[in-house]
Amino acid sequence: MRPVEKNKIDRCLEAARLAPSACNAQPWRFIIIDDPVLKNKLARKIFRGPYAINTHAEPAPVWIAVVSEKSAFMTRFGGFLRGTPFYLLDIGAAIMQLLLAATEQNLGTCWLGWFDERYAKKILGISRDKKICSLVALGYPAEDTRPKNRKILTDISSYNTKSP
Amino acid sequence: MRPVEKNKIDRCLEAARLAPSACNAQPWRFIIIDDPVLKNKLARKIFRGPYAINTHAEPAPVWIAVVSEKSAFMTRFGGFLRGTPFYLLDIGAAIMQLLLAATEQNLGTCWLGWFDERYAKKILGISRDKKICSLVALGYPAEDTRPKNRKILTDISSYNTKSP
Repeated sequence: MRPVEKNKIDRCLEAARLAPSACNAQPWRFIIIDDPVLKNKLARKIFRGPYAINTHAEPAPVWIAVVSEKSAFMTRFGGFLRGTPFYLLDIGAAIMQLLLAATEQNLGTCWLGWFDERYAKKILGISRDKKICSLVALGYPAEDTRPKNRKILTDISSYNTKSP
Repeated sequence: MRPVEKNKIDRCLEAARLAPSACNAQPWRFIIIDDPVLKNKLARKIFRGPYAINTHAEPAPVWIAVVSEKSAFMTRFGGFLRGTPFYLLDIGAAIMQLLLAATEQNLGTCWLGWFDERYAKKILGISRDKKICSLVALGYPAEDTRPKNRKILTDISSYNTKSP
Protein backbone atom coordinates (compact mmCIF):
# COMPACT_ATOMS: atom_id res chain seq x y z
CA MET A 1 0.00 0.00 0.00
CA ARG A 2 1.14 3.55 -0.66
CA PRO A 3 2.49 5.76 2.13
CA VAL A 4 0.14 8.47 3.38
CA GLU A 5 1.12 12.10 2.82
CA LYS A 6 1.87 14.08 5.97
CA ASN A 7 -0.73 16.75 5.19
CA LYS A 8 -3.42 14.07 5.04
CA ILE A 9 -2.43 12.71 8.43
CA ASP A 10 -2.44 16.26 9.78
CA ARG A 11 -5.96 16.77 8.46
CA CYS A 12 -7.09 13.65 10.32
CA LEU A 13 -5.51 14.84 13.57
CA GLU A 14 -6.97 18.30 13.13
CA ALA A 15 -10.47 16.83 12.83
CA ALA A 16 -9.88 14.56 15.83
CA ARG A 17 -8.66 17.31 18.11
CA LEU A 18 -11.70 19.46 17.29
CA ALA A 19 -14.08 16.90 18.75
CA PRO A 20 -16.02 18.13 21.77
CA SER A 21 -15.01 16.78 25.19
CA ALA A 22 -16.33 17.07 28.73
CA CYS A 23 -15.09 20.34 30.25
CA ASN A 24 -13.09 20.65 27.02
CA ALA A 25 -10.51 18.39 28.64
CA GLN A 26 -9.33 16.95 25.29
CA PRO A 27 -8.19 13.81 27.14
CA TRP A 28 -6.35 12.32 24.16
CA ARG A 29 -2.91 12.13 22.63
CA PHE A 30 -2.16 10.66 19.23
CA ILE A 31 1.08 8.92 18.32
CA ILE A 32 1.71 8.57 14.60
CA ILE A 33 3.52 5.41 13.67
CA ASP A 34 4.58 5.66 10.04
CA ASP A 35 8.18 4.51 10.25
CA PRO A 36 8.19 1.02 8.68
CA VAL A 37 10.95 -0.19 11.02
CA LEU A 38 9.05 0.84 14.15
CA LYS A 39 5.78 -0.45 12.73
CA ASN A 40 7.27 -3.85 11.99
CA LYS A 41 8.82 -4.00 15.43
CA LEU A 42 5.42 -3.28 16.97
CA ALA A 43 3.60 -5.67 14.65
CA ARG A 44 5.83 -8.56 15.70
CA LYS A 45 4.93 -8.01 19.34
CA ILE A 46 1.43 -6.60 19.65
CA PHE A 47 -0.42 -8.99 17.33
CA ARG A 48 0.87 -12.24 18.76
CA GLY A 49 -1.11 -15.07 20.33
CA PRO A 50 -4.73 -14.13 21.05
CA TYR A 51 -4.18 -10.82 19.27
CA ALA A 52 -3.26 -12.49 15.97
CA ILE A 53 -6.78 -11.93 14.63
CA ASN A 54 -5.78 -8.33 14.00
CA THR A 55 -2.72 -8.93 11.83
CA HIS A 56 -4.84 -7.54 8.97
CA ALA A 57 -3.78 -4.12 10.29
CA GLU A 58 -0.14 -4.75 9.40
CA PRO A 59 -0.25 -3.73 5.72
CA ALA A 60 -1.74 -0.31 6.52
CA PRO A 61 1.04 2.29 6.01
CA VAL A 62 0.17 4.30 9.14
CA TRP A 63 -1.00 3.43 12.61
CA ILE A 64 -2.23 5.98 15.09
CA ALA A 65 -2.01 5.01 18.73
CA VAL A 66 -4.64 6.79 20.82
CA VAL A 67 -3.45 7.43 24.36
CA SER A 68 -5.93 8.50 27.01
CA GLU A 69 -4.75 11.35 29.18
CA LYS A 70 -6.01 12.15 32.62
CA SER A 71 -8.91 14.54 32.18
CA ALA A 72 -9.46 17.67 34.21
CA PHE A 73 -10.28 17.19 37.87
CA MET A 74 -13.90 18.29 37.50
CA THR A 75 -14.48 15.84 34.67
CA ARG A 76 -12.91 12.99 36.61
CA PHE A 77 -14.90 13.88 39.71
CA GLY A 78 -18.12 14.21 37.70
CA GLY A 79 -17.42 10.91 35.94
CA PHE A 80 -16.79 9.25 39.28
CA LEU A 81 -20.06 10.55 40.72
CA ARG A 82 -21.99 9.57 37.61
CA GLY A 83 -20.30 6.16 37.30
CA THR A 84 -19.23 6.92 33.74
CA PRO A 85 -15.64 7.63 32.67
CA PHE A 86 -16.48 10.52 30.36
CA TYR A 87 -13.01 10.56 28.83
CA LEU A 88 -13.77 7.37 26.91
CA LEU A 89 -16.88 8.91 25.36
CA ASP A 90 -14.73 11.89 24.40
CA ILE A 91 -12.04 9.72 22.84
CA GLY A 92 -14.67 7.79 20.90
CA ALA A 93 -15.91 11.09 19.46
CA ALA A 94 -12.38 12.17 18.54
CA ILE A 95 -11.66 8.86 16.80
CA MET A 96 -14.92 9.11 14.88
CA GLN A 97 -13.84 12.55 13.61
CA LEU A 98 -10.48 11.06 12.64
CA LEU A 99 -12.14 8.24 10.67
CA LEU A 100 -14.40 10.66 8.82
CA ALA A 101 -11.52 12.96 7.93
CA ALA A 102 -9.61 9.93 6.64
CA THR A 103 -12.56 8.81 4.55
CA GLU A 104 -12.94 12.28 3.12
CA GLN A 105 -9.36 11.94 1.86
CA ASN A 106 -9.88 8.49 0.33
CA LEU A 107 -8.02 6.76 3.15
CA GLY A 108 -9.53 3.52 4.37
CA THR A 109 -9.28 2.90 8.11
CA CYS A 110 -9.60 0.20 10.71
CA TRP A 111 -10.26 1.03 14.37
CA LEU A 112 -8.73 -1.58 16.68
CA GLY A 113 -9.02 -2.12 20.41
CA TRP A 114 -7.53 -5.61 20.55
CA PHE A 115 -3.72 -5.72 20.67
CA ASP A 116 -1.04 -6.40 23.27
CA GLU A 117 -0.97 -3.05 24.97
CA ARG A 118 1.85 -4.00 27.33
CA TYR A 119 4.28 -4.31 24.44
CA ALA A 120 2.86 -1.32 22.63
CA LYS A 121 3.51 0.87 25.69
CA LYS A 122 6.99 -0.53 26.14
CA ILE A 123 8.03 0.03 22.52
CA LEU A 124 6.42 3.46 22.27
CA GLY A 125 7.72 4.59 25.67
CA ILE A 126 4.31 5.23 27.24
CA SER A 127 4.31 5.27 31.03
CA ARG A 128 2.43 2.60 32.93
CA ASP A 129 -0.23 4.91 34.31
CA LYS A 130 -1.49 5.76 30.82
CA LYS A 131 -3.65 3.69 28.50
CA ILE A 132 -3.37 3.10 24.78
CA CYS A 133 -7.08 2.61 24.36
CA SER A 134 -7.16 2.25 20.58
CA LEU A 135 -5.09 1.89 17.45
CA VAL A 136 -6.28 3.24 14.13
CA ALA A 137 -4.80 1.65 11.02
CA LEU A 138 -4.85 4.21 8.25
CA GLY A 139 -4.28 4.18 4.52
CA TYR A 140 -6.13 1.18 3.14
CA PRO A 141 -7.21 1.80 -0.44
CA ALA A 142 -10.67 3.36 -0.34
CA GLU A 143 -11.11 5.02 -3.70
CA ASP A 144 -13.64 2.54 -4.94
CA THR A 145 -15.93 2.49 -1.95
CA ARG A 146 -16.20 6.16 -1.17
CA PRO A 147 -19.49 7.79 -2.17
CA LYS A 148 -19.07 10.27 -4.98
CA ASN A 149 -19.71 13.99 -4.86
CA ARG A 150 -20.07 14.28 -1.14
CA LYS A 151 -18.13 16.32 1.34
CA ILE A 152 -17.52 15.44 4.93
CA LEU A 153 -17.38 18.21 7.45
CA THR A 154 -15.54 17.54 10.64
CA ASP A 155 -14.64 21.07 11.62
CA ILE A 156 -16.84 21.03 14.71
CA SER A 157 -15.21 24.21 15.98
CA SER A 158 -17.31 26.30 13.63
CA TYR A 159 -20.57 24.72 14.73
CA ASN A 160 -23.01 25.81 17.33
CA THR A 161 -22.17 22.69 19.28
CA LYS A 162 -21.47 23.24 22.93
CA SER A 163 -19.75 20.78 25.20
CA PRO A 164 -19.97 22.06 28.74
CA MET B 1 -37.35 27.53 20.00
CA ARG B 2 -39.07 25.74 17.15
CA PRO B 3 -39.94 22.03 17.36
CA VAL B 4 -37.69 19.70 15.33
CA GLU B 5 -39.25 17.80 12.42
CA LYS B 6 -39.40 14.04 12.86
CA ASN B 7 -37.47 13.35 9.66
CA LYS B 8 -34.58 15.46 10.96
CA ILE B 9 -34.48 13.51 14.20
CA ASP B 10 -34.58 10.28 12.18
CA ARG B 11 -31.61 11.46 10.11
CA CYS B 12 -29.63 12.06 13.32
CA LEU B 13 -30.44 8.60 14.64
CA GLU B 14 -29.62 7.00 11.30
CA ALA B 15 -26.16 8.60 11.36
CA ALA B 16 -25.63 7.56 14.98
CA ARG B 17 -26.57 3.94 14.44
CA LEU B 18 -24.16 3.67 11.50
CA ALA B 19 -21.15 4.40 13.72
CA PRO B 20 -18.67 1.54 13.95
CA SER B 21 -18.57 -0.44 17.20
CA ALA B 22 -16.41 -3.20 18.65
CA CYS B 23 -17.63 -6.55 17.27
CA ASN B 24 -20.42 -4.48 15.71
CA ALA B 25 -22.17 -4.70 19.09
CA GLN B 26 -23.99 -1.36 18.61
CA PRO B 27 -24.19 -1.02 22.41
CA TRP B 28 -26.54 1.97 22.37
CA ARG B 29 -30.20 2.83 22.57
CA PHE B 30 -31.63 6.28 21.98
CA ILE B 31 -34.72 7.63 23.68
CA ILE B 32 -36.27 10.65 22.00
CA ILE B 33 -37.83 13.09 24.44
CA ASP B 34 -39.82 15.61 22.46
CA ASP B 35 -43.05 15.68 24.43
CA PRO B 36 -43.03 19.03 26.26
CA VAL B 37 -44.89 17.60 29.26
CA LEU B 38 -42.40 14.77 29.72
CA LYS B 39 -39.47 17.08 29.07
CA ASN B 40 -40.64 19.55 31.69
CA LYS B 41 -41.20 16.76 34.16
CA LEU B 42 -37.65 15.55 33.58
CA ALA B 43 -36.20 19.07 33.67
CA ARG B 44 -37.68 19.71 37.10
CA LYS B 45 -35.92 16.64 38.49
CA ILE B 46 -32.68 16.01 36.66
CA PHE B 47 -31.22 19.53 36.71
CA ARG B 48 -31.64 20.22 40.43
CA GLY B 49 -28.97 20.95 43.00
CA PRO B 50 -25.45 20.31 41.72
CA TYR B 51 -26.86 19.61 38.27
CA ALA B 52 -28.40 23.09 37.94
CA ILE B 53 -25.44 24.26 35.84
CA ASN B 54 -27.05 22.42 32.92
CA THR B 55 -30.46 24.08 32.96
CA HIS B 56 -29.37 25.75 29.71
CA ALA B 57 -30.48 22.50 28.05
CA GLU B 58 -34.11 23.08 29.00
CA PRO B 59 -35.11 25.36 26.09
CA ALA B 60 -33.92 22.84 23.47
CA PRO B 61 -37.04 21.30 21.89
CA VAL B 62 -35.68 17.73 21.85
CA TRP B 63 -33.54 15.71 24.19
CA ILE B 64 -32.03 12.39 23.27
CA ALA B 65 -31.16 10.09 26.15
CA VAL B 66 -28.33 7.72 25.25
CA VAL B 67 -28.63 4.41 27.07
CA SER B 68 -25.70 2.01 27.09
CA GLU B 69 -26.61 -1.60 26.41
CA LYS B 70 -24.59 -4.61 27.41
CA SER B 71 -22.27 -5.34 24.52
CA ALA B 72 -21.63 -8.77 23.06
CA PHE B 73 -19.83 -11.21 25.31
CA MET B 74 -16.63 -11.14 23.28
CA THR B 75 -16.48 -7.35 23.44
CA ARG B 76 -17.10 -7.34 27.19
CA PHE B 77 -14.51 -10.03 27.71
CA GLY B 78 -11.99 -8.25 25.48
CA GLY B 79 -12.68 -4.96 27.24
CA PHE B 80 -12.19 -6.63 30.59
CA LEU B 81 -8.86 -8.12 29.53
CA ARG B 82 -7.71 -4.84 28.02
CA GLY B 83 -8.95 -2.73 30.96
CA THR B 84 -11.01 -0.53 28.63
CA PRO B 85 -14.80 -0.61 28.42
CA PHE B 86 -14.99 -0.46 24.63
CA TYR B 87 -18.72 0.26 24.66
CA LEU B 88 -18.07 3.82 25.87
CA LEU B 89 -15.70 4.50 22.96
CA ASP B 90 -18.39 3.14 20.64
CA ILE B 91 -21.08 5.33 22.17
CA GLY B 92 -18.84 8.36 21.89
CA ALA B 93 -18.46 7.65 18.17
CA ALA B 94 -22.23 7.24 17.73
CA ILE B 95 -22.94 10.52 19.52
CA MET B 96 -20.36 12.29 17.38
CA GLN B 97 -22.16 11.04 14.26
CA LEU B 98 -25.43 12.27 15.76
CA LEU B 99 -24.01 15.74 16.41
CA LEU B 100 -22.64 16.00 12.87
CA ALA B 101 -25.94 14.92 11.33
CA ALA B 102 -27.71 17.52 13.47
CA THR B 103 -25.28 20.23 12.40
CA GLU B 104 -25.75 19.26 8.76
CA GLN B 105 -29.45 20.00 9.26
CA ASN B 106 -28.90 23.36 10.95
CA LEU B 107 -29.71 21.98 14.40
CA GLY B 108 -27.54 23.20 17.23
CA THR B 109 -26.72 20.63 19.88
CA CYS B 110 -25.37 20.28 23.38
CA TRP B 111 -23.89 16.99 24.63
CA LEU B 112 -24.41 16.58 28.39
CA GLY B 113 -23.08 14.05 30.85
CA TRP B 114 -24.01 15.87 34.03
CA PHE B 115 -27.61 15.34 35.19
CA ASP B 116 -29.40 13.38 37.89
CA GLU B 117 -29.47 9.99 36.25
CA ARG B 118 -31.41 8.37 39.08
CA TYR B 119 -34.46 10.50 38.33
CA ALA B 120 -33.96 10.26 34.58
CA LYS B 121 -34.08 6.46 34.76
CA LYS B 122 -37.09 6.50 37.03
CA ILE B 123 -39.11 8.85 34.83
CA LEU B 124 -38.09 7.15 31.58
CA GLY B 125 -38.59 3.64 32.96
CA ILE B 126 -35.02 2.47 32.45
CA SER B 127 -34.01 -0.51 34.56
CA ARG B 128 -31.37 -0.12 37.24
CA ASP B 129 -28.75 -2.26 35.51
CA LYS B 130 -28.59 0.11 32.56
CA LYS B 131 -26.88 3.48 32.29
CA ILE B 132 -28.03 6.72 30.72
CA CYS B 133 -24.51 7.82 29.88
CA SER B 134 -25.38 11.01 28.02
CA LEU B 135 -28.14 13.40 27.06
CA VAL B 136 -28.05 15.32 23.81
CA ALA B 137 -30.08 18.54 23.70
CA LEU B 138 -31.10 19.14 20.10
CA GLY B 139 -32.61 22.00 18.17
CA TYR B 140 -30.82 25.15 19.25
CA PRO B 141 -30.79 27.71 16.44
CA ALA B 142 -27.66 27.15 14.37
CA GLU B 143 -28.37 28.77 11.03
CA ASP B 144 -25.92 31.59 11.53
CA THR B 145 -22.94 29.61 12.64
CA ARG B 146 -22.99 26.77 10.14
CA PRO B 147 -20.35 26.96 7.41
CA LYS B 148 -21.87 27.54 4.00
CA ASN B 149 -21.73 25.22 1.00
CA ARG B 150 -20.44 22.22 2.83
CA LYS B 151 -21.89 18.78 3.21
CA ILE B 152 -21.37 16.47 6.11
CA LEU B 153 -21.17 12.78 5.41
CA THR B 154 -21.99 10.47 8.25
CA ASP B 155 -23.06 7.42 6.29
CA ILE B 156 -20.16 5.34 7.50
CA SER B 157 -21.79 2.17 6.19
CA SER B 158 -20.65 2.96 2.67
CA TYR B 159 -17.04 3.52 3.65
CA ASN B 160 -14.15 1.17 3.64
CA THR B 161 -14.07 1.47 7.43
CA LYS B 162 -13.89 -1.82 9.24
CA SER B 163 -14.60 -2.29 12.90
CA PRO B 164 -13.55 -5.78 13.87
